[in-house]
Amino acid sequence: MESTTPRMLAAIVAVVAAAAQAVSAQRPAAPVVSPELQPDRKVTFRLRAPAAKEVSVWGDWGPAVPLARADDGVWSVTLGPLAPELYQYGFIVDGLRITDPGNPHTKPQRSPSTSILEVPGQPALLSEFQPVPHGTLHHHAYQSRPLGRVRPLVVYTPPGYDQQASGRFPVLYLFHGSGDSEATWGVVGRAHYILDNLIHAGRAKPMVIVMPDGHAVPPGPAGGQNLEQFERDLLEEVIPFAEAHYRIRNTPDGRAIVGLSMGGGQSLTIGLNHTELFAWVGGFSSAVRDPAVSLAPALADPAATNGKLKLLWFACGKDDRLVDGARVLDTLLKEKSIRHEYQETAGGHSWPVWRKYLPQFVSLLFQ
Amino acid sequence: MESTTPRMLAAIVAVVAAAAQAVSAQRPAAPVVSPELQPDRKVTFRLRAPAAKEVSVWGDWGPAVPLARADDGVWSVTLGPLAPELYQYGFIVDGLRITDPGNPHTKPQRSPSTSILEVPGQPALLSEFQPVPHGTLHHHAYQSRPLGRVRPLVVYTPPGYDQQASGRFPVLYLFHGSGDSEATWGVVGRAHYILDNLIHAGRAKPMVIVMPDGHAVPPGPAGGQNLEQFERDLLEEVIPFAEAHYRIRNTPDGRAIVGLSMGGGQSLTIGLNHTELFAWVGGFSSAVRDPAVSLAPALADPAATNGKLKLLWFACGKDDRLVDGARVLDTLLKEKSIRHEYQETAGGHSWPVWRKYLPQFVSLLFQ
Repeated sequence: MESTTPRMLAAIVAVVAAAAQAVSAQRPAAPVVSPELQPDRKVTFRLRAPAAKEVSVWGDWGPAVPLARADDGVWSVTLGPLAPELYQYGFIVDGLRITDPGNPHTKPQRSPSTSILEVPGQPALLSEFQPVPHGTLHHHAYQSRPLGRVRPLVVYTPPGYDQQASGRFPVLYLFHGSGDSEATWGVVGRAHYILDNLIHAGRAKPMVIVMPDGHAVPPGPAGGQNLEQFERDLLEEVIPFAEAHYRIRNTPDGRAIVGLSMGGGQSLTIGLNHTELFAWVGGFSSAVRDPAVSLAPALADPAATNGKLKLLWFACGKDDRLVDGARVLDTLLKEKSIRHEYQETAGGHSWPVWRKYLPQFVSLLFQ
Repeated sequence: MESTTPRMLAAIVAVVAAAAQAVSAQRPAAPVVSPELQPDRKVTFRLRAPAAKEVSVWGDWGPAVPLARADDGVWSVTLGPLAPELYQYGFIVDGLRITDPGNPHTKPQRSPSTSILEVPGQPALLSEFQPVPHGTLHHHAYQSRPLGRVRPLVVYTPPGYDQQASGRFPVLYLFHGSGDSEATWGVVGRAHYILDNLIHAGRAKPMVIVMPDGHAVPPGPAGGQNLEQFERDLLEEVIPFAEAHYRIRNTPDGRAIVGLSMGGGQSLTIGLNHTELFAWVGGFSSAVRDPAVSLAPALADPAATNGKLKLLWFACGKDDRLVDGARVLDTLLKEKSIRHEYQETAGGHSWPVWRKYLPQFVSLLFQ
């Protein structure tokens, strides 16, 4: 029973073929085009769901909007014109949240239910692919000894990295939020295109970006241990792996750390408690629990902390439910006279905001 | 109207925050665990869909199976024990095919509706991550001049590629099927793990694998032009890009070409008509239209074709609807005395079959 014999394989593939036929018999006759972006930036969403009672589309552009059903069972609605932006959206079918089956571009997340729609700008947004030299996203997997399982890891190398045979690049460790994965800063955050464009414009130093999986512990009863276990994996596996595979700097002034939401809690806590490793520390819309306790080592000796840090930068949107926590941290750091930059911006807890924070932060690094 | 002003951004993020709140209000109280793989290889699938009338799960293991509804609106079923394999599956909710929202692992495809479940073997399958040296998957984007748009590209480099400063590797151009994308040979085909394991066992030469997007033309009225446009993009953009960015060989005996289904039609047609580029040619469950016409140049001078080819290998499953086409091609090549190897195997048009063909084919390359 422990391995696939040829006979088992034959049985499997036979039923697979039968299932494939059964499934294809259920397929709609004509494919539905969705989303359809018109030149005036109006967008039509369509879903074939003959049995559904209610279909709506939610998106970064505003509240959910109902779709109307046609006689052929195809639901549709046209919105906009939409401002240039990379939008997240999805359908809600009788209460069930699903991706748009017509759209191959989906958001990497723990519970996949979100599609992506890019409405390009003129001129192009900083997050768009532009005619400039491009870096590369590298996908790795590694066996984590502290966590006892295989973990994914994404690494960005800047344009020219491969053409150069020697020389070490500064490195940014960049963390995602709780609903997302190691791939989300690329696919949705467009960290690679933002860096390509900034580097080309001379607004950021060429740097390597290391994007680990922020979920060291599955959500649930053990979820409270996530920060601690993530820190162990970062220090014992991710950083050594990155330094073994890439020509990156291994001194504090060549290392930065930042993340968003859950990842901002990770970056601020780990960064400020390990100033022997990181001289550039940040957080976007960060969830820092109990900063007086979790940051106690850094707060205990402000002069030492100020001496080691080259940058402590964090930001939060005024409409973000986490803004109170950001203000608490700002006040605490002021009381302790720890140098920092806190920005309170327009916006909430959302990717359009984080795609603005990333260029602000990386432009300050390694100067 | 052509760019996002701060005021527009503020308006957008405000409604985003409102939408996020509205959406989170609709979220179920407790997350549903799905799929849940037990040690005995039984698997439980769960979906929260209180308003649904009928829910079933389809998968590579056999015909679709209905789920049962509990009072809390969660549907579930337990299947198996399942033989070790990487399974594709999905839910059908009142006729709508969706991915499992509890499972972060989804199949890259044109119409996303498929989740992935790995049931590990003991010993491990060739397609599993094992404790051997590992290569890397690199994700690129490039501007295609013939197609006039940005295109994705995935490249595998074998273990040790980065540690070696010089020396060129042989290269395999590997194409996906019509429902899939440039990422599917990695995520579902596990081409990278298969190669890592074969190379470690001395059963394949270290090689680079280049995986382009097989859809040069969107499906629809212009779909008939896909092979021709794909060939232009491959020859004018993909191969030059790969040779500019990677240390790969640029002579026929250092280049192989293979694909599955639509991609097998592409690899056999382009490969056999360009023996000045490729000496190693293959096809898995291939869709070759009108071989007497499409392969006319190669068939016209069998002695020349035999002199240039080091390998022509193709295979198809007995239960595959494309097997008749494979037999026609086999007969045609025999009539013309063009040396080739044709394998008719158990199985249908499915990934478990293609994950068997890949190791067979790559083991023969560059010897």
